[in-house]
Amino acid sequence: MGKYPAEPGDGARPNLTVPKEQVMEKVVALAKRRGFIYPSSEIYGGLSGFYDYGPYGVALKRAIRDLWWRHMVELRDDVVGLESTLLMPRAVWEASGHLENFVDPLRQCLGRCKKRWRADHVLGEKCPECGGPLDDARLFNLMFKAFVGPLEDRASEVYLRPETAQGMFVDFKNVISSTRVRVPFGIAQQGKAFRNEITPGNFVFRVREFELMELEYFVRPNQDDESFDYWRKERLRWYTEVLGVSPEKLRMYDHPKESLSHYSKQTTDIEYEFPFGWGELEGIADRTDYDLAVHQEKSKQDLTYLDPETNERYLPWVIEPAVSMERIFITLLVDAYDEDVVNNEPRVVLHLHPNVAPVQVAVVPLSKKPELIEVAQEVIKGLRGEFRVEYDQTGGNIGRRYRRQDEIGTPFCITIDFDTLNDKAVTIRHRDTTNQERVPITALAGRLGLLTDGLEPS
Amino acid sequence: MGKYPAEPGDGARPNLTVPKEQVMEKVVALAKRRGFIYPSSEIYGGLSGFYDYGPYGVALKRAIRDLWWRHMVELRDDVVGLESTLLMPRAVWEASGHLENFVDPLRQCLGRCKKRWRADHVLGEKCPECGGPLDDARLFNLMFKAFVGPLEDRASEVYLRPETAQGMFVDFKNVISSTRVRVPFGIAQQGKAFRNEITPGNFVFRVREFELMELEYFVRPNQDDESFDYWRKERLRWYTEVLGVSPEKLRMYDHPKESLSHYSKQTTDIEYEFPFGWGELEGIADRTDYDLAVHQEKSKQDLTYLDPETNERYLPWVIEPAVSMERIFITLLVDAYDEDVVNNEPRVVLHLHPNVAPVQVAVVPLSKKPELIEVAQEVIKGLRGEFRVEYDQTGGNIGRRYRRQDEIGTPFCITIDFDTLNDKAVTIRHRDTTNQERVPITALAGRLGLLTDGLEPS
Repeated sequence: MGKYPAEPGDGARPNLTVPKEQVMEKVVALAKRRGFIYPSSEIYGGLSGFYDYGPYGVALKRAIRDLWWRHMVELRDDVVGLESTLLMPRAVWEASGHLENFVDPLRQCLGRCKKRWRADHVLGEKCPECGGPLDDARLFNLMFKAFVGPLEDRASEVYLRPETAQGMFVDFKNVISSTRVRVPFGIAQQGKAFRNEITPGNFVFRVREFELMELEYFVRPNQDDESFDYWRKERLRWYTEVLGVSPEKLRMYDHPKESLSHYSKQTTDIEYEFPFGWGELEGIADRTDYDLAVHQEKSKQDLTYLDPETNERYLPWVIEPAVSMERIFITLLVDAYDEDVVNNEPRVVLHLHPNVAPVQVAVVPLSKKPELIEVAQEVIKGLRGEFRVEYDQTGGNIGRRYRRQDEIGTPFCITIDFDTLNDKAVTIRHRDTTNQERVPITALAGRLGLLTDGLEPS
Repeated sequence: MGKYPAEPGDGARPNLTVPKEQVMEKVVALAKRRGFIYPSSEIYGGLSGFYDYGPYGVALKRAIRDLWWRHMVELRDDVVGLESTLLMPRAVWEASGHLENFVDPLRQCLGRCKKRWRADHVLGEKCPECGGPLDDARLFNLMFKAFVGPLEDRASEVYLRPETAQGMFVDFKNVISSTRVRVPFGIAQQGKAFRNEITPGNFVFRVREFELMELEYFVRPNQDDESFDYWRKERLRWYTEVLGVSPEKLRMYDHPKESLSHYSKQTTDIEYEFPFGWGELEGIADRTDYDLAVHQEKSKQDLTYLDPETNERYLPWVIEPAVSMERIFITLLVDAYDEDVVNNEPRVVLHLHPNVAPVQVAVVPLSKKPELIEVAQEVIKGLRGEFRVEYDQTGGNIGRRYRRQDEIGTPFCITIDFDTLNDKAVTIRHRDTTNQERVPITALAGRLGLLTDGLEPS
């Protein structure tokens, strides 16, 4: 056996094709059943467009979060981190244009159902639900508003950020004066964002509360094209090489000029072929100096950068690769979901890359005999902290426990059997091929390190 | 040299005592100057009670976050993670008692200054600021309110959570039915929380937006005392052994019965001796089955747990260790801040434990000669990804660069000098003692691993 994943064509996936129209429903059911995603506040009837993440969901999210940060910040010497507040004052959103532009036209049914629709989602003058008349379109701002302090006046108005980017622009001056960054450099941020979507949907694809991972990469004015091109390629590489997303399901979509956001010179989406069609996974936008310029104007603060080599002063331009955790999450589940047949029995399996699998290694003693359990506990002690591990002693016969691990995407099960007591070796059972290999306990951590290392550059 | 930290009394700290009344001011200034913490939206005049975290601040926060998660979840086999939404519907806060009880009595000055005061913070009937008369106390709810969807009616009311705990209770049923957890077990969560404090203050000690790290540890009814005692000790251990907080600055404060929260049977605070006095760092509360019981009643859902061994059904009781990132952050900065004299020059130094230092290893070539830079780049390449590293080539002479690293708490600087070209060795310069040791480049990563491993159990 070589490094994960196994060579193409060695039987890993997929044996049984799941009809496209069923994938989403199956993934949603699995996500809830196996503790990945629950509807938020479900015991009170839920909250449309909000989802909670259960134990395996959190493990997957943390893996994604860490891999993004590792590749965007830690392994680079030109990107630093920032965490700005989720609530930001009205002045920020006035300057950024969000108060004026971050709106959807909305039409309400005046008939029986009173439902609200995005104006661009209805054709004609009738409510798609009950056929009643619709009122004229009104502009609806997608930001959630709150008030700081006891008074509810304009001076106390704050908004839950709809993107993390403005934090990087508003703090730009603080970052350049408190660190030794030099253009070109980036500021990266991970954190929650909120959009009061009129029609959330497609599970966690479009939600009202989500987590963004954004990089603002600052370059010299008019030197944007090269960096734009670099980030398009680099981000695509990350999805395939680090997260293990199927390359044939990804494509680049360049926005036509007329559909660009108000701040963008050029935008490319990395799209994934979801069961409901191609959809945006990540957006890479060339924001020019739009944001720094408007904040400089409105705040009356000097936001220029002084180039220490040339002594030029300028507002840098910025390239922004931005993606939400939720889009990556649903992409990984959909991409990994499969059904096949093993030992003449149908099996549900998530072919998650070891980099992101919520459990990387499950330790399963063959029986509840104390002597096996004792060894199993020793084995897991040696792996815990280095890998994401789970101990599975109570879940029925060994086959059932393998299946349960397959369903949550665990790439490797370590089986402790009665031979172990004599040969001091255990079996590594591979999820994708169901192949087994015997490894001495003393060599186990090393072997698993090699296997889970996967496609990461070594 | 042994493992970090050096033996007590070997001269590490403190040589020069900083007057207590100056520490806070100095820490605030350093935090801003060196990119740890900025006032939020500062270019627009800031937002009282909100702070952003700069590059070194984010590195420190991420280290704290990871160490909490590692010790509370990953290294244990009885705790799982959860991430619930920050916005939760009115029904949750009605049930939990927050709509009724999470209030402060507020009095407003009717004289010149119009300031608002917490009623328990003013003595008598006069405004402490301008001496004007005060109105009667009114109850002010500390939760931020927003509306989901376009209508601003009661059915659309949501609140930014003031604690993460309710998410664990509301999702309790989903967690037990989608995983194989068995009482006793815990659900852990890290995430933002919000309180519309009337008087935020003491830098990030009391803020309006913060990050909580909470564990709800579920036990059999009436078996709470043992677990309560365990978590008090375990959490104290974490601060001293893992984060390196000075033990003599920590104490336990047991709340008297009459001052307990409405849900608590017993509460202990781990307090730290801040420059402004003893204050709560972490709270450990015995919430009994209060929360599960009220949610079961209000939601009309069965939230009982079925014990698979005894076949008993019960509502578990819960012990909750809860701390905010901000309290840990300010504790670490205050605890680490020191001024001493090195080579007859005063120095500012943060004695941060290597576990949490934003930069663990700085690589500093003695000069800008290409042959030194080439080796330095090789050295940093071998360390990046394994340690939090920084390359410092441009910051003036070597002494100045050491001082800058001291000020942000970097425990180890690696100096590449001209001897390096011959002996293939580098110097490790220790922050606390300023001692230097010569190490072959081939042995550097191993030696640094040992040094940064610190007091972590190996």
